[in-house]
Amino acid sequence: MRYVSKEDVDHIALGASFLAAGGGGNVEVGKLLLKRAIEKHGKVKLISLDELQDEDFIIPLGEMGAPVVGLEKFGRGDEPSLVVKYLSKKLGRIATAVTAVEVGGGNSMIPMVAAAQLGIPMVDADSMGRAFPETQMTSYHIHGVSANPFAIIDERGNECQIEAVDTFWAEKISRNITSLMGARSTVATFAMDGRTAKRACVGGTITLSQTIGRILSESDNEEKLPMLLKQVSGTLLFRGKIVDVNRQTVGGFNKGGVVLQGTDEDSDSTCRINFQNENLICYVGDRVVATVPDIIAILNAESLIPITTEELRYGFRTVVVGLPAAPIWRTRAGIEVAGPKYFGYDVEYIPVEVRSKRE
Amino acid sequence: MRYVSKEDVDHIALGASFLAAGGGGNVEVGKLLLKRAIEKHGKVKLISLDELQDEDFIIPLGEMGAPVVGLEKFGRGDEPSLVVKYLSKKLGRIATAVTAVEVGGGNSMIPMVAAAQLGIPMVDADSMGRAFPETQMTSYHIHGVSANPFAIIDERGNECQIEAVDTFWAEKISRNITSLMGARSTVATFAMDGRTAKRACVGGTITLSQTIGRILSESDNEEKLPMLLKQVSGTLLFRGKIVDVNRQTVGGFNKGGVVLQGTDEDSDSTCRINFQNENLICYVGDRVVATVPDIIAILNAESLIPITTEELRYGFRTVVVGLPAAPIWRTRAGIEVAGPKYFGYDVEYIPVEVRSKRE
Repeated sequence: MRYVSKEDVDHIALGASFLAAGGGGNVEVGKLLLKRAIEKHGKVKLISLDELQDEDFIIPLGEMGAPVVGLEKFGRGDEPSLVVKYLSKKLGRIATAVTAVEVGGGNSMIPMVAAAQLGIPMVDADSMGRAFPETQMTSYHIHGVSANPFAIIDERGNECQIEAVDTFWAEKISRNITSLMGARSTVATFAMDGRTAKRACVGGTITLSQTIGRILSESDNEEKLPMLLKQVSGTLLFRGKIVDVNRQTVGGFNKGGVVLQGTDEDSDSTCRINFQNENLICYVGDRVVATVPDIIAILNAESLIPITTEELRYGFRTVVVGLPAAPIWRTRAGIEVAGPKYFGYDVEYIPVEVRSKRE
Repeated sequence: MRYVSKEDVDHIALGASFLAAGGGGNVEVGKLLLKRAIEKHGKVKLISLDELQDEDFIIPLGEMGAPVVGLEKFGRGDEPSLVVKYLSKKLGRIATAVTAVEVGGGNSMIPMVAAAQLGIPMVDADSMGRAFPETQMTSYHIHGVSANPFAIIDERGNECQIEAVDTFWAEKISRNITSLMGARSTVATFAMDGRTAKRACVGGTITLSQTIGRILSESDNEEKLPMLLKQVSGTLLFRGKIVDVNRQTVGGFNKGGVVLQGTDEDSDSTCRINFQNENLICYVGDRVVATVPDIIAILNAESLIPITTEELRYGFRTVVVGLPAAPIWRTRAGIEVAGPKYFGYDVEYIPVEVRSKRE
């Protein structure tokens, strides 16, 4: 058990935006919300999965929607605690802790905002170890935890409770409501007891974010990239300048692609990365060098600050890094739910570090 | 108190499809469902508003969606009772009776199906005295009854509970979910106690439907139209042949228009009727002869059987009849919610019988 202070927030947010693979929502808005919540309510108590009691009751939460909308549309600020209270009321059971659906980006901040507002601990965990765009792409789903009831609220005060036949329908219905709510909502789902959480969560991901964030912000510029790659067992995929970006908000998602022209030793080659909120697949020339579920991160070439898919702009100089997804994503069930084929790419999943050795 | 037998169903359905103003869903499917339910569970107990006790608990229900879809997409058959049970469970209060949201068309049958399946009475009432396309176009809404919680289910087993900031948001969210569910859902909303129901319902509309249905099916052909007009204080608006129909399913609605070429004494003139599930406005030449909230019914010229907006076809010979809406629709609040301006027509509401006298 430890406490997350205002000073820790920047590191966690920076590391989380790296793990977000380009998605996870804008981290600046989440950072502001969390700092304000800590100022008002005190530090957030962060507990590990090991510290949970079997009879604890954990509510995971996050924001849903096209991240680009989150940049322009601020909420009221109390949605994180409101959605937890709403779901608690529906279930007739008080949450003893909250946790994250995804650790990537702003969605690592939102549950800690709820923890501060409610005065309950945050579990140092999530269900992705990264960011993913859909509800079934969670370790909760893979471990058979029910998404029901799925609570969804907006900043106006609309509240809905979905009890779907399966996680896919929960995703469809909630995504649809999110579009109607203005492409942004706050959701709480996969409520579970402590015993289930120990089994079904990806643990330690807030702390991992903080470690990554510390490397990115405190290390010397030349050491940064090697230290980062070592910390996350990552692979350098490409160095290049953005020469084309296309992006559309479709069905509540931010979809598109970016093309990079190589710099330095890659100057003859191009790199293309396609995304749906998060980066999905990376080609160098015609060759696939990384795919989901592994994490593809596009970073500022100098500062190594991660660039989200909604922030990509012509002319940015970047490095592209691939890193292994959490072990659950590399299982057969994980690849089925969140591998390249699910997203419409007729490509086998090969771990990023294996692809890089084939060169 | 009286009982509705299988023999009564045809008359009620026929009269209801007349009051439906072209909407209300296909009545044949509803008829089959209700006859099957009566066969299996016995006659439906029909009680009047006067017979309600203050402490009764009434759940109104119906189907939502583009009626044209109801023709092709059958449900499981138990959605009417399931949606009542779902809402009862959410409220922790057992329904002592059900009633209709709209009396028009298939939606007069659906609550009686629930009544038969659940073994509780049907209240001889609804909230429209006709059919209307949106949730706020109900006497419940006008009387300040809350639409929350709004229960919505589909034939797959998906269930949602909406607690919206107002009836308009309940409509938007439920309409959106209905689209996703395949443009057809079963809903229960505006649950209320007996005391409220007495104040907020439009009473006697099942019995009125049955009276109209009896005239249409039992009277001599030549007497039918005058008897019908007398019964409902109606006005004959036009006699003509359909020469054009256009129709689209937009946002879960069946929208479009129909053009008639006059027959007999009207042979020089044309008539145009625009609809959104229900007929909204009727022009003869350039002159508006009837608008919502009054009822505009297009009937088969021979049999006087009502033609729903999804059944309109080139070549049909028809008579068009206008009749006064229930008194609540002719109040200022009623006209605001369901008058021509709400539907985008820059026309003042003038009662149909007043318009016809101006000729």
